[in-house]
Amino acid sequence: MTVRFGLLGAGRIGKVHAKAVSADAKAKLVAVADAFPAAAQAIADAFGCDVRTIEAIEAASDIDAVVICTPTDTHADLIERFARAGKAIFCEKPVDLDAERVRACLDVVEQTGGKLMVGFNRRFDPHFMAVRKAIDEGRIGDVEMVTIISRDPGAPPVDYIKRSGGIFRDMTIHDFDMARFLLGEEPVTVTAHAAVLVDPEIGKAGDYDSVSVILQTASGRQAVISNSRRATYGYDQRIEVHGSKGVVSAENQRAVSIEIANGEGYTRPPLHDFFMTRYTEAYANEIAGFIAAIEEGATISPSGKDGLAALLLADAAVKSVTEKRQIEVAL
Amino acid sequence: MTVRFGLLGAGRIGKVHAKAVSADAKAKLVAVADAFPAAAQAIADAFGCDVRTIEAIEAASDIDAVVICTPTDTHADLIERFARAGKAIFCEKPVDLDAERVRACLDVVEQTGGKLMVGFNRRFDPHFMAVRKAIDEGRIGDVEMVTIISRDPGAPPVDYIKRSGGIFRDMTIHDFDMARFLLGEEPVTVTAHAAVLVDPEIGKAGDYDSVSVILQTASGRQAVISNSRRATYGYDQRIEVHGSKGVVSAENQRAVSIEIANGEGYTRPPLHDFFMTRYTEAYANEIAGFIAAIEEGATISPSGKDGLAALLLADAAVKSVTEKRQIEVAL
Amino acid sequence: MTVRFGLLGAGRIGKVHAKAVSADAKAKLVAVADAFPAAAQAIADAFGCDVRTIEAIEAASDIDAVVICTPTDTHADLIERFARAGKAIFCEKPVDLDAERVRACLDVVEQTGGKLMVGFNRRFDPHFMAVRKAIDEGRIGDVEMVTIISRDPGAPPVDYIKRSGGIFRDMTIHDFDMARFLLGEEPVTVTAHAAVLVDPEIGKAGDYDSVSVILQTASGRQAVISNSRRATYGYDQRIEVHGSKGVVSAENQRAVSIEIANGEGYTRPPLHDFFMTRYTEAYANEIAGFIAAIEEGATISPSGKDGLAALLLADAAVKSVTEKRQIEVAL
Amino acid sequence: MTVRFGLLGAGRIGKVHAKAVSADAKAKLVAVADAFPAAAQAIADAFGCDVRTIEAIEAASDIDAVVICTPTDTHADLIERFARAGKAIFCEKPVDLDAERVRACLDVVEQTGGKLMVGFNRRFDPHFMAVRKAIDEGRIGDVEMVTIISRDPGAPPVDYIKRSGGIFRDMTIHDFDMARFLLGEEPVTVTAHAAVLVDPEIGKAGDYDSVSVILQTASGRQAVISNSRRATYGYDQRIEVHGSKGVVSAENQRAVSIEIANGEGYTRPPLHDFFMTRYTEAYANEIAGFIAAIEEGATISPSGKDGLAALLLADAAVKSVTEKRQIEVAL
Repeated sequence: MTVRFGLLGAGRIGKVHAKAVSADAKAKLVAVADAFPAAAQAIADAFGCDVRTIEAIEAASDIDAVVICTPTDTHADLIERFARAGKAIFCEKPVDLDAERVRACLDVVEQTGGKLMVGFNRRFDPHFMAVRKAIDEGRIGDVEMVTIISRDPGAPPVDYIKRSGGIFRDMTIHDFDMARFLLGEEPVTVTAHAAVLVDPEIGKAGDYDSVSVILQTASGRQAVISNSRRATYGYDQRIEVHGSKGVVSAENQRAVSIEIANGEGYTRPPLHDFFMTRYTEAYANEIAGFIAAIEEGATISPSGKDGLAALLLADAAVKSVTEKRQIEVAL
Repeated sequence: MTVRFGLLGAGRIGKVHAKAVSADAKAKLVAVADAFPAAAQAIADAFGCDVRTIEAIEAASDIDAVVICTPTDTHADLIERFARAGKAIFCEKPVDLDAERVRACLDVVEQTGGKLMVGFNRRFDPHFMAVRKAIDEGRIGDVEMVTIISRDPGAPPVDYIKRSGGIFRDMTIHDFDMARFLLGEEPVTVTAHAAVLVDPEIGKAGDYDSVSVILQTASGRQAVISNSRRATYGYDQRIEVHGSKGVVSAENQRAVSIEIANGEGYTRPPLHDFFMTRYTEAYANEIAGFIAAIEEGATISPSGKDGLAALLLADAAVKSVTEKRQIEVAL
Repeated sequence: MTVRFGLLGAGRIGKVHAKAVSADAKAKLVAVADAFPAAAQAIADAFGCDVRTIEAIEAASDIDAVVICTPTDTHADLIERFARAGKAIFCEKPVDLDAERVRACLDVVEQTGGKLMVGFNRRFDPHFMAVRKAIDEGRIGDVEMVTIISRDPGAPPVDYIKRSGGIFRDMTIHDFDMARFLLGEEPVTVTAHAAVLVDPEIGKAGDYDSVSVILQTASGRQAVISNSRRATYGYDQRIEVHGSKGVVSAENQRAVSIEIANGEGYTRPPLHDFFMTRYTEAYANEIAGFIAAIEEGATISPSGKDGLAALLLADAAVKSVTEKRQIEVAL
Repeated sequence: MTVRFGLLGAGRIGKVHAKAVSADAKAKLVAVADAFPAAAQAIADAFGCDVRTIEAIEAASDIDAVVICTPTDTHADLIERFARAGKAIFCEKPVDLDAERVRACLDVVEQTGGKLMVGFNRRFDPHFMAVRKAIDEGRIGDVEMVTIISRDPGAPPVDYIKRSGGIFRDMTIHDFDMARFLLGEEPVTVTAHAAVLVDPEIGKAGDYDSVSVILQTASGRQAVISNSRRATYGYDQRIEVHGSKGVVSAENQRAVSIEIANGEGYTRPPLHDFFMTRYTEAYANEIAGFIAAIEEGATISPSGKDGLAALLLADAAVKSVTEKRQIEVAL
């Protein structure tokens, strides 16, 4: 069976998903919608699909599933509409920046019996998947301490920062999801520190650019997250899981792995400098996972509840910085 | 402009090229031919092209270029036919196992003004390309000593060995081409040692499975090649170029780069176990390079002459083992 | 000039220092004292020095400096006695487990004009020194985020745990000192999480075995520390300093650096399994640094105040775990 | 028991051995002799031993063993004298540059029942020993292909080159010994290529600076050696042994193992730049091995015969370059 897709939003991440859908033998990109007709047409030309309105996609009998890549503040509404329209839904994170709005949206999904997958692409990175698999196979025993370091090559524009919900809800949220993916047990407390070290303009916008977080589970497992909006050497994404029998880690990725040595030392190239090149395989695997869940009727993961859980951790981190104390969370 | 392709041969490597052509935005796979209709049909179904006879492809006005993936002993004849038919030709290595036959074939290509690219895919591996680029940028100064280690995960069936032309013409030939690609100067002498260490059946078939070769250029640059038909840890493909100002090397590649540590030590996964997964990007780049050469009218590289040069080095290696001495070559 | 040493305490760490002093061309081990005469005699035999009482060493005119390796609860008293006796003092960490007692002791040292160095050996590890040097040379710009991971190969006996002052004062204290060494600015807040994941007996003794700490400085620089009393793969000691222009890190150390590859993957040996083999060079450099400070009249580092600062951070960490909030510190 | 040593030759390598002997608990340096009294006195002052003449050391009843570090052309004579004097002998390589002279010298050693160890220090490097141990434990199965890359940081003065016996006898000789140590079977044929790429003055002196060698054993095992008198990135010393079940390799060594990353990439420091710092542990282990052989009456290894075997391989390599063919050797 082929899953027939509509794409909502023809921006940068929309193109990524258009490519992933088109390249998947089990999927077909049928139509794209965007507020800017030229953007939609460009996708249509490149991947051979129709340009339609959102309403047309909603009503289409030749579309089984949608990928939502529109601006964040439209996500929850679109999820509700397409759940009611009976389409399977893949939505880029976050569902919404407000937890109450997310809860209301997930209620609609549940009432309609809809299928919703949230775009935490890193769970589908082959290296991180191999880490998870090593844990599942018992190769490191019981999980004890998780370490996550993520640093972006550079800060986004301040305009973006202002609309982003802040670093915890925009950037750390991926690490919160990854921590949950790896800990194997829900966090019950969150502590965060935050500062402006990279760009004072980020501080003026009311946000931070350098943060540290500790999550702890009921049994005492701990995850430490270190984030920076700056990394001169590329897109830095590392995870390590320490357990009772050993430790497993995923290394950083680079486009080419050569090494040049001279009197200055041994030098390997910088890392990927962009999340799209770093996570190319993850985006393809993610769509494949969505299709498999649709076809096999399997539980969708990461689900809307996973999206909510990561957001609640982000909210708690914000509160921890403000109140200078541990915040309890119930996920 | 789109380059319209015919594919000759629908076997394992034919599929690789069908996929590479189909995925390239500047190319279109129009038709496939194979002595086994079912094999051709499988490609046609998977990639949405016609099944035609070789004759039909030869005569087709909607085909600009062919990819030859048929058995080795048909290559030279097909190259001549398609050169005369005015098609651009990509031919899997080797053109032929007999140097005289190759020379005659290249003469036809030249007389017809044909375009011929030979499938030394490793030149298009992004890591090896980065090594070549580092040399070109002067980062290691003058090239002095090249080291190439290639080991296959396992020996092919003895039936294949018997038709292969022997390890030097079948396996080392890639390393001969890589040595020429890296040395920046033609070898003038060849010395080789060879033995049967992996499988006595290979020896009974008159071939070797473990060989060492030294190439030397007129100015004294040296390349050392070490080959084995066995590597328990995967497809081992390393190059290192030492120069007057430094050294550049390309590391081995693996599908996932995690590391697990416990009381036994720190363990990373084995390498890719198959040339197709190891060289996925190289095959795509190779076809892209072929298309670029056709479209831009650029010099094709690696050319038929490159194919001949590698074969002459292989012939010299065979002779060196037999006569236990250095063999001079004029490339 | 040769610095003439007396050694107080002939236990495990006493032997390490006896060896370091004996091997240093600028030092001479004159005498050793220990409550167990046999232990003192063993050192005397191995390194060719006298066995004397503490009183005799205090009064000796042929001894310039002492190394205090006696039980922790004797450190402060001995420092005061030997400061009054005019000997230069190297004391194993900690000066005392009680910050007030430390302050009183340091007052005596100051009043007597004494010289006191505290045994934070890691500052003298050549790899960590090279990290500090890279920072000083401006190679990573301004320090922003420090990550320290230290894990012991195994937990000490519970009897030791009970006398240790707890994991923060016994184990993390080294990391607190290292964080101060690397941050280049004093921490002003401390947050810690702690749990018992390795051995329930440690919990029964009122201590933890798995802890996470965040330190933050006035300008917002952050250090994250992750500790475990367990590491199946050896003595895990890593530091990383991220700055505005780049990042510098020190890798783990192992006794031999070979790699074996087979069908299971590529395996390197486990790490050093003991702090003495891991820090062999650090102990030698530490004594050399102490001698240099004595001879050149240079400022001693790490000083008694460094010892106090690390202890205050440990006290704050304990308080943070109990009160579930950030604790302010004034170092 | 303590082995009492006399040291013949107080030059650079003499100092290395003086230090190794002095630091070994089972050895005592009693006396040193050198044609330059000041050089001998410097060693005597640093390590607390006598200065004596060679004749006095020969006749001394308080000396059990000698370390010969005098110029190469005196080695064979001194070995014979001290064998007759009943001293155990450690002699720096080579015994002599002429194989016939070596044979005659070894005959004297045998007739006198003397003990002679030859200074192939690399066999005692902990990393290379671990490679040998991995082979002995069967971890890579049967040895098939050995790869040795050694490059010096820079060429020695041409005056040294002229007296050195040429690169094969001076530099490659260590690799010939290492190949024998690793192959587990004697080479029966040798092929070598050689050129002058580093310094034309070396060519004018009749020597080469860049060489490649293949050794092959009776069963077909092959060792490939690549040498250069130049390496901008330090003292490059790598070995790899490929076998039927896997491969084992020893990595290069550096003084500090930090890594700095920025926009240019990830850079680790250059390697050790001098054989003495690279092989510090090997020199200590070597003397310890010599002492153990004396004390336990064990077979000495590497023996005079090992020294001869490496020289015969070097002679064959010279001949192979000249005659442009494989040379047979009988070791």
